[in-house]
Order: sequence, then structure tokens, then C-alpha cells
Amino acid sequence: MDYKLDFISRVLQRTAGKRIEHYVISRIWHLLKNNEIKMIPQQYISRMQARYALTDLYFPQIKLHVEINEPAHYFNEIIIRQDLERKMEIERRTSHKLFIIDCRQEISNIHAQVDELISIITSDVNIQISNGVFKPWKPEDDHNPNHWKAKGSIAVADEVSFNTIEDICTLFSADYRKIVRGFLRKGGIINPRANDQLIWWPSENSRNGWINSFDPIRETITETHNIPHKAIEHYNDYLHQNCTRIVFLHFKDILGFTNYKYIGVFKNDNVLSAPDVGTVWKIAGDKFDLNTCKFEVRLD
Amino acid sequence: MDYKLDFISRVLQRTAGKRIEHYVISRIWHLLKNNEIKMIPQQYISRMQARYALTDLYFPQIKLHVEINEPAHYFNEIIIRQDLERKMEIERRTSHKLFIIDCRQEISNIHAQVDELISIITSDVNIQISNGVFKPWKPEDDHNPNHWKAKGSIAVADEVSFNTIEDICTLFSADYRKIVRGFLRKGGIINPRANDQLIWWPSENSRNGWINSFDPIRETITETHNIPHKAIEHYNDYLHQNCTRIVFLHFKDILGFTNYKYIGVFKNDNVLSAPDVGTVWKIAGDKFDLNTCKFEVRLD
Repeated sequence: MDYKLDFISRVLQRTAGKRIEHYVISRIWHLLKNNEIKMIPQQYISRMQARYALTDLYFPQIKLHVEINEPAHYFNEIIIRQDLERKMEIERRTSHKLFIIDCRQEISNIHAQVDELISIITSDVNIQISNGVFKPWKPEDDHNPNHWKAKGSIAVADEVSFNTIEDICTLFSADYRKIVRGFLRKGGIINPRANDQLIWWPSENSRNGWINSFDPIRETITETHNIPHKAIEHYNDYLHQNCTRIVFLHFKDILGFTNYKYIGVFKNDNVLSAPDVGTVWKIAGDKFDLNTCKFEVRLD
Repeated sequence: MDYKLDFISRVLQRTAGKRIEHYVISRIWHLLKNNEIKMIPQQYISRMQARYALTDLYFPQIKLHVEINEPAHYFNEIIIRQDLERKMEIERRTSHKLFIIDCRQEISNIHAQVDELISIITSDVNIQISNGVFKPWKPEDDHNPNHWKAKGSIAVADEVSFNTIEDICTLFSADYRKIVRGFLRKGGIINPRANDQLIWWPSENSRNGWINSFDPIRETITETHNIPHKAIEHYNDYLHQNCTRIVFLHFKDILGFTNYKYIGVFKNDNVLSAPDVGTVWKIAGDKFDLNTCKFEVRLD
């Protein structure tokens, strides 16, 4: 089946729980009439995407968030105030835009709000197109290592995501057989073009006692072990090192497929790390040049 | 909440089981952009509406059926042949139109098929509008006895449907208190303007042993009792009579509300009736004049 049809039809199916929100989401998608626009609903994105998922719906290409407030949402004054605060917080922190749809109104008014949103999205996309910066939603490229290899760089905003570890190896021209044969730790492989960089594919599922947890707000990954002496040993190993890891976080996407998504370049942070916490890896850079192996330092 | 928003959002929510069909149904509704068009999905209409529900989607105002064939539908040659036969049967019997959407195609092709359907619907509606015969979807009127009283007649195609027995009584200026007080059988009341007509609201739920079953294809209602001697007694009572009933069938609609829907004027058929079957009521007429109490004889 067509990937986009598969993706969007699953999104619509799985958001059906909140009836009015689902009605609005399906209306937005259908009236956009533009398959090149990517739309991510909150409920079904993985935890690792939560950074973008502070709202019900997110359009990554134009950094636009949509909040769809069901009638029940307004029953409580406290919720309304919390929501306003959340809205201001999103705008302050992310410089993203936020559009709120109030579903207490009658159907024609809700339709009018959706029409207004559609015209904002369309206008933003048209501006990007005329500036030559619009990147159409191409899931077949997003998942293809040769596409990114040809491009020469990857960035978090590009939503680079592979289905297999072999694809990650292809991107870096690393020898996949080394992983299969077990010569190296299975959680990663040395970048063949830069021996001081580990290409890492951590999973939040526990593996042989190793536990990785990703904090999308602080942009850290905490690596530890469920056996205390192994955790401490690991902490001590990294305490006096300054290591660099190019990270592809493992998760299952909305279609139930395995994904390894590029989430940036991380370094071990010896202030945040502690024997009882584990080794904490902190975001250090974003856009990564596949040829020079240099990365743009993340300025927060 | 707005009735139409409530209705359509529930329709979309409840059709979410078949993912691609649901995608297509939501796209059709949203792209129609016309709240005056009524759309009935197959899965959630009651048994009594099955006459119109030989297809996935039905637009009663323009008598247009839509079949949405999911990819799985085409796996089997036999299914395809059965479907063609069904299509021919529908067209032959009902003089309704049928539009088939083939979902084996890629997303842009499915979208093109929906666009074509939308333009057919829009064109049909526009023809009705310019001929002055278009009846906008007005659920608030459909359910209001005073609306029909003012109109002076009811017809099956009008989709007249009330929420209470009191509303049925209002339509005929019958004395609702007579039912409440139990002067007459609770399943119906004599038409105050025509003593030879019973206004009947049978339910397919068994009541005190009485069982009514509606056959929407043959347009018959079989009335019997689960105690054999009562069933035979009832059969004998009607054997030499020629009775007329104006029928409002009881069912629960998609919103979970009780409905009494006008399904026509019925007469007992003493050829179809039998002691072991029950008394069979056969459709006799459709459009009913509330003032003269005459009805247009149904010609099959």
C-alpha cells in the first residue's frame, strides 16, 4: 500500500477516540489537499518525538502547532488558564506558532476555524515554495540512507529515520558485518571516517540489563545498568573521557515499524552523570556533515 | 452540541474499524463542504434501514450509493464477481445510482476518485436546487411532529422519525394520555381522524412475549407471540379482517437515541400469514395525507 495512505489512514483511525478532535483532524488533512505536507498527531508519536508534541497536531515543515479543544476542555477555568500558560510557554521556547481551534461552537463555526487554519498553512507553504526552501514530505527519502548520503549531511529537523541498523551503516559506509559478527558492541559502531565518534542506536527497551532513557525536554540520554556494580563501572569508565556519539534512537512508529531516528550528536556530561544515575549524554550538536564528520554545535 | 456535528463525528468515529474505508468516508464528507447533504454509512444504520443500506454509503437526497472497496476486497475473484452482480441487482431494483471507489490505487488516484464522486454529488444537488426540489438535511425538522403536521403529509423517502410516542400522537392529534392511562394497547392508538386505521409503533425488541420482525427487503412485518396458543389466537383474530396500520418502527439510532421511523402504511396479508408464522403485515402505501387520511398505494 501507498506509504502516505497507510500513514494518514492509521493516524485517522487511531485518533478516533476523541471524537470531535478526530473530526477536526480529519477535516484539516482532507481540506489541505496537499500530500506534500506532513502532519503529526500528538497521541501516536513516540516519546522521543515529544519535543515537538506539546500540542495535538504539529506541522514540522512550517513549525505550526494546532490545539484542538473539545467542548469538555472548557468545563474548568483552571484548565483554560493552564492552557494559556502552556501556549505562551510553547511560543516563548520554540518560536513555533500555535493555532487553537475552539470546538464549543456549532459545526459551521468549527468549519470556519479549520478554513482559517488551512489558509494559514497554505500561505506559509507557498512562501516557502517561492523562497525555494519548502521540503515536501517524502517518507521514501526520509528512510533511504542513500538519499542522505547523496545530500552529504543530516539534521534533526530533517526527520531522518531508518528502518534497520544496516541502513545506518550504509549512511556512514560502516561495515555492517562487523556488527553481525559481534566484533564490536551491538549497540553501536565506530564511525569509519572519524575514530573518535561512535554511531549509536540506543533503545529505550532494556537490552541485557542496559537501560537507556531519553529525556526529550532536556535532550539527554541516561545510560545505566540494572546491576549496580555494572552501572558504577560504566560511570567510572566515562568519567575522565570526552566522548562523542551520533545518535539514532530506536522506537516503533505509528505503523508499528522499527525506526532509528537521528536525534543529534551527544557528548557525555560529567556534571550530570553520577554513579547512582548513570552516564548522562547531553546534546552537543545538530547538523552533521557526513563527509567532514563535523557538526554544528547546538546553541540553546 | 450541534446535532449534525454530533451525528457526523459519531459516524466517522464508528466507521474507523475499516481503515481505508474510513479514510475515504471522512474525505467524502469533508470535501463535500455542504452540511445540507445527508450521508448514511452502512455499518451503523439500523436493520430497518437496510433497504437503503445495500452499500457502504448512501446519499438519500439524490439516491446515490457508494461502494468503497478496500484492497483486501479484490483478493478473490469470486468476491469481485459477486460484487458486480450485487451492483447490477441494486441498479435494476432500485433505480438508484452506484459509484464504486477502488482503493487498490495509490493515494492520489483514490483522491481523484473521491473528487469525481464529489463533483457528481454536487452536480446532482445543484440540479435539484435549480428545479426547486432539493430538500436540505434538517434533522431538527425530521424529528419535529409540528413540522410534518404543517406540511400535511409524510412519506418514507422523507425519513420522518420521532424520538417519542408522544411526538407520534402530536402528529395525528391523538390523545397521548390514552396510552399513558392504558385505555388502549400500548403498541398503538386509533387514528382519531380515521377509526379504521391504527397508528402502530412496533419494536423488534420483544414486549410481553409479542415479537415483531421487520423484513426490509419484502417490506413485511411479522407479528406473533412466543406462546403458541396466543400466536394462533392472534392469527385467527385477523384472518377475516382487512386492517390498516400506519407504521412507525422503533429502533435505536447511531447516536443511541430511540427513534420511531415512519416506514409506510401496512395491511394484514392473509396469504402470507399462517398460524405457525404469525400475522404478516405487508406494505400497502407510502405517502400518507394527514388531513384526508388517504395514502398513495405502493406499486411494486
